[in-house]
Amino acid sequence: MPSDPTIARLLIRCPDQPGIVGTTAGFLHTHGANITSLDQHASDFEGGTFFMRLEFHTPHVDLPATGLVKAFDDFVAKRFEMEYRITYGGDRKKAVLFASSADHALLELLWRAERQQLDCEIACVISNHDKLRKAVEGFDVPFHYVANHRGRRRAAEEQMLALCAGADLLVLARYMQILSGDFVARFPNRIINIHHSFLPAFVGADPYRQAWERGVKIVGATAHYVTADLDQGPIIAQGVADISHRQNVEAMKRLGQSVERDTLANAVQWHLEDRVVVDGTKTVVFR
Amino acid sequence: MPSDPTIARLLIRCPDQPGIVGTTAGFLHTHGANITSLDQHASDFEGGTFFMRLEFHTPHVDLPATGLVKAFDDFVAKRFEMEYRITYGGDRKKAVLFASSADHALLELLWRAERQQLDCEIACVISNHDKLRKAVEGFDVPFHYVANHRGRRRAAEEQMLALCAGADLLVLARYMQILSGDFVARFPNRIINIHHSFLPAFVGADPYRQAWERGVKIVGATAHYVTADLDQGPIIAQGVADISHRQNVEAMKRLGQSVERDTLANAVQWHLEDRVVVDGTKTVVFR
Amino acid sequence: MPSDPTIARLLIRCPDQPGIVGTTAGFLHTHGANITSLDQHASDFEGGTFFMRLEFHTPHVDLPATGLVKAFDDFVAKRFEMEYRITYGGDRKKAVLFASSADHALLELLWRAERQQLDCEIACVISNHDKLRKAVEGFDVPFHYVANHRGRRRAAEEQMLALCAGADLLVLARYMQILSGDFVARFPNRIINIHHSFLPAFVGADPYRQAWERGVKIVGATAHYVTADLDQGPIIAQGVADISHRQNVEAMKRLGQSVERDTLANAVQWHLEDRVVVDGTKTVVFR
Amino acid sequence: MPSDPTIARLLIRCPDQPGIVGTTAGFLHTHGANITSLDQHASDFEGGTFFMRLEFHTPHVDLPATGLVKAFDDFVAKRFEMEYRITYGGDRKKAVLFASSADHALLELLWRAERQQLDCEIACVISNHDKLRKAVEGFDVPFHYVANHRGRRRAAEEQMLALCAGADLLVLARYMQILSGDFVARFPNRIINIHHSFLPAFVGADPYRQAWERGVKIVGATAHYVTADLDQGPIIAQGVADISHRQNVEAMKRLGQSVERDTLANAVQWHLEDRVVVDGTKTVVFR
Repeated sequence: MPSDPTIARLLIRCPDQPGIVGTTAGFLHTHGANITSLDQHASDFEGGTFFMRLEFHTPHVDLPATGLVKAFDDFVAKRFEMEYRITYGGDRKKAVLFASSADHALLELLWRAERQQLDCEIACVISNHDKLRKAVEGFDVPFHYVANHRGRRRAAEEQMLALCAGADLLVLARYMQILSGDFVARFPNRIINIHHSFLPAFVGADPYRQAWERGVKIVGATAHYVTADLDQGPIIAQGVADISHRQNVEAMKRLGQSVERDTLANAVQWHLEDRVVVDGTKTVVFR
Repeated sequence: MPSDPTIARLLIRCPDQPGIVGTTAGFLHTHGANITSLDQHASDFEGGTFFMRLEFHTPHVDLPATGLVKAFDDFVAKRFEMEYRITYGGDRKKAVLFASSADHALLELLWRAERQQLDCEIACVISNHDKLRKAVEGFDVPFHYVANHRGRRRAAEEQMLALCAGADLLVLARYMQILSGDFVARFPNRIINIHHSFLPAFVGADPYRQAWERGVKIVGATAHYVTADLDQGPIIAQGVADISHRQNVEAMKRLGQSVERDTLANAVQWHLEDRVVVDGTKTVVFR
Repeated sequence: MPSDPTIARLLIRCPDQPGIVGTTAGFLHTHGANITSLDQHASDFEGGTFFMRLEFHTPHVDLPATGLVKAFDDFVAKRFEMEYRITYGGDRKKAVLFASSADHALLELLWRAERQQLDCEIACVISNHDKLRKAVEGFDVPFHYVANHRGRRRAAEEQMLALCAGADLLVLARYMQILSGDFVARFPNRIINIHHSFLPAFVGADPYRQAWERGVKIVGATAHYVTADLDQGPIIAQGVADISHRQNVEAMKRLGQSVERDTLANAVQWHLEDRVVVDGTKTVVFR
Repeated sequence: MPSDPTIARLLIRCPDQPGIVGTTAGFLHTHGANITSLDQHASDFEGGTFFMRLEFHTPHVDLPATGLVKAFDDFVAKRFEMEYRITYGGDRKKAVLFASSADHALLELLWRAERQQLDCEIACVISNHDKLRKAVEGFDVPFHYVANHRGRRRAAEEQMLALCAGADLLVLARYMQILSGDFVARFPNRIINIHHSFLPAFVGADPYRQAWERGVKIVGATAHYVTADLDQGPIIAQGVADISHRQNVEAMKRLGQSVERDTLANAVQWHLEDRVVVDGTKTVVFR
């Protein structure tokens, strides 16, 4: 849903130690920010990493946005060695979507964005096929065909980098090309991919066929941040569906597409709502 | 699991207003209590009721338990008109279980308690049949047969009241007798019942037959606090299972039993962990 | 998926008695029809109603379609007092979709039909609002705005009857007007509606608000055949999703929409594949 | 549930070809056997393997059990090169359960058997620990402690073979020892194991820790037939449960145990009801 412009979010990661919640909440209270939601997590009982997400009501805050950030930095963040992010409801994130020829995951995102169920602006769609142009343009979203085959990768990535300028999030909605390590490194924890299996089962190509050959009774999909290691990035969301001997590979794909699009859309929504923090190879998702 | 004796829990309900989180967290921090978990909820954006659950680490608290409560009462609770409860990890709750002749829900609770998956002492089991005595005594839990038929209700309830003295929680694990309003009133929000349907569908007797006759494709179970209005108390947990035309009433019952016992055990566990707050006819469950 | 033109389906309902399977299978075998799928159900152990669905491979059948039906009628159906239907894979069903202003259920059906996941031709969409015209026409499906308010119902239904001429199936994809008993009677077990609650809970208007007020922990959707009794027709499919105190009515609606569209699309697909037989107030669904 | 003694089951596997259903159904009909349930599956559209499960009512069959088998063999099975099995409802299967120190999966099976939800006689329980003796003997089931450590494997397996004489099914209900290839080979497709992960993810030791380290959002359990290849046997049933960053390894184990016991119990029940046929490295499960 569209963010309430009177709400801001504070997302924190820091070494765990006593007093973080009390100090942070006290700071916000002192400055007239009323906390409307707070969730936190410590990775270990003692000595681990601490994660916290707060939402606060801004109308009575006694400082402008930049002033509040500066004060928070000076009086709280430095003391606790926090990495943090403050987002105001009015600032919509900018997302670029990538797809190949399958449309189910892409169209789900375009749909949800159009209905304001995803709080972002879709800057454009990039595809290595021209097939989905009409469907995308029907949503009044720019479509860019960028050929990306062996021997053209570098040129393609330069083109794509230009299109992604200013993007807060890249979503690989069944984009069937591998991005280079250099490209990925420019968007740390800001590229979300949907893998069409229940990772870590069935990494690599054609996972539905692998699943069918193994005779599993449940198929799944995994939304994760993209890292240099293929299919190894931190998992944000997973979904599953029951299958039986009656489904052949094609039927499994059809069923799986429904899981894929819901799983990806959930992950994207949680990212946009600043609910996801990366903890090494894992994620903390404040839902 | 058994509560960590170095952890205490604070559960709060009060009118919503600015400053609750900041003041409460600040109070705990000042007294050396390190907050390890915090969850909160406001029933409306403004002007509603506020709910909060905190867990805090007690070893460095500068006051004994009663002193902390008194200080909290004086400096925080009164100011915000809070109803609240502070529970220390070492204080195990005392539960009395009620059953009739079906054993599935009862034995599940006894099992989980024995494995310390439910953090309570089972004071005894009360039944209006003698059938389950051997099974219960096998868990080294006292079993009391209390006949409870028309014409004996008052005597039965007096007997049961005596057995429930000091109990923090009563669990109706498929106890097929109605408790009087007077009895129920003595344990407000402290009696949990499992209803063998997805309420509010199929209130009353023989819900699996009702469900079968209506031809539903999913059956369910509902764990709720008991109030004077039969099957109308605040819902704590619900579970479901898919069915098809192949299940007759008996098969639906068997399938439903598995849902009932999991749903009831979840509700009991959340209650024991001080995760449930009643909000009028509903519950807030901090999971 | 599009039906294989070399496959035919036989759907049967008759009084249960010995010999039905053997006689039917023998008849098909004799005429060169190879049975590739068979599912059956008896409503009671003895003396009930018998239901069966067969798929058979047609290339080696020794009779043309009409001849096979006549022979089956003469030699099998009459003897067992069968109601039955034989459908050839090449004969696509014709569906008319109804919607009001919400688009999620409607667009899901248009999408699946376009991808050939629903085996039918969408003859047109009828709506009592003009709002979805552009979205529908984007799928190259005719859109008809038919005002249907108090005082215009009869005229509206006449118009709609004309548009539904030759339709095998009418789907109410969140069509928020009541159809008259006369209209419904013309399409027995051929109108599918999606009700946005887990029936029989929350019949009538605004079920998400009812569910929120009751404080349920699971919401659902129900796809059913439409009968003269509102919300009482035979249930084909139901779906559910977990909710908590965090969802307000709006959030429940958004979550529910995802359940609604999947549940309705499943029911429509099963109907189109001749998997659903009505058994009084219930359905048998051969999945 | 206990099998109806008037019902028999016929389970078939053979090369696919026209006429199997018609001939089989015709044969049964001719001999007075009324088919009450029939399910079938072909592994490929043409040229694959054919699987069928029938239940039939026996009171009016014109031959004794052995006569019917012989006639079926002579007139149907040989012609279609069938592997098949006919089971009469009155013949209860005999199962031996194996466990180590965890009791959840074992007790679930003992419970269900005692309530007649599993149609078998539990011949005995074998364990490489003495810890569960009391719990098992409480069900009036013999308990055998058979030490099975390195250097004693051969002796242990000889002892266990003797205890398994006449067993139709062996169930490894969290038995944490590896059985030798020789032992396994004596019970082809008759040993069921529960693996505490969603196979093929997390094969090998301590899968919950592996899952926790990978940061998955869903955990699962897999019931499969045991073959010489560890964790590679044909999968019968799988179950899953959602998790989040809040669950540590211990909490994941507790949650997983609930999935394990249901998944294993389902697989055992389907096997006992002759619903499972092995198809190479996979299973067909007629549910």
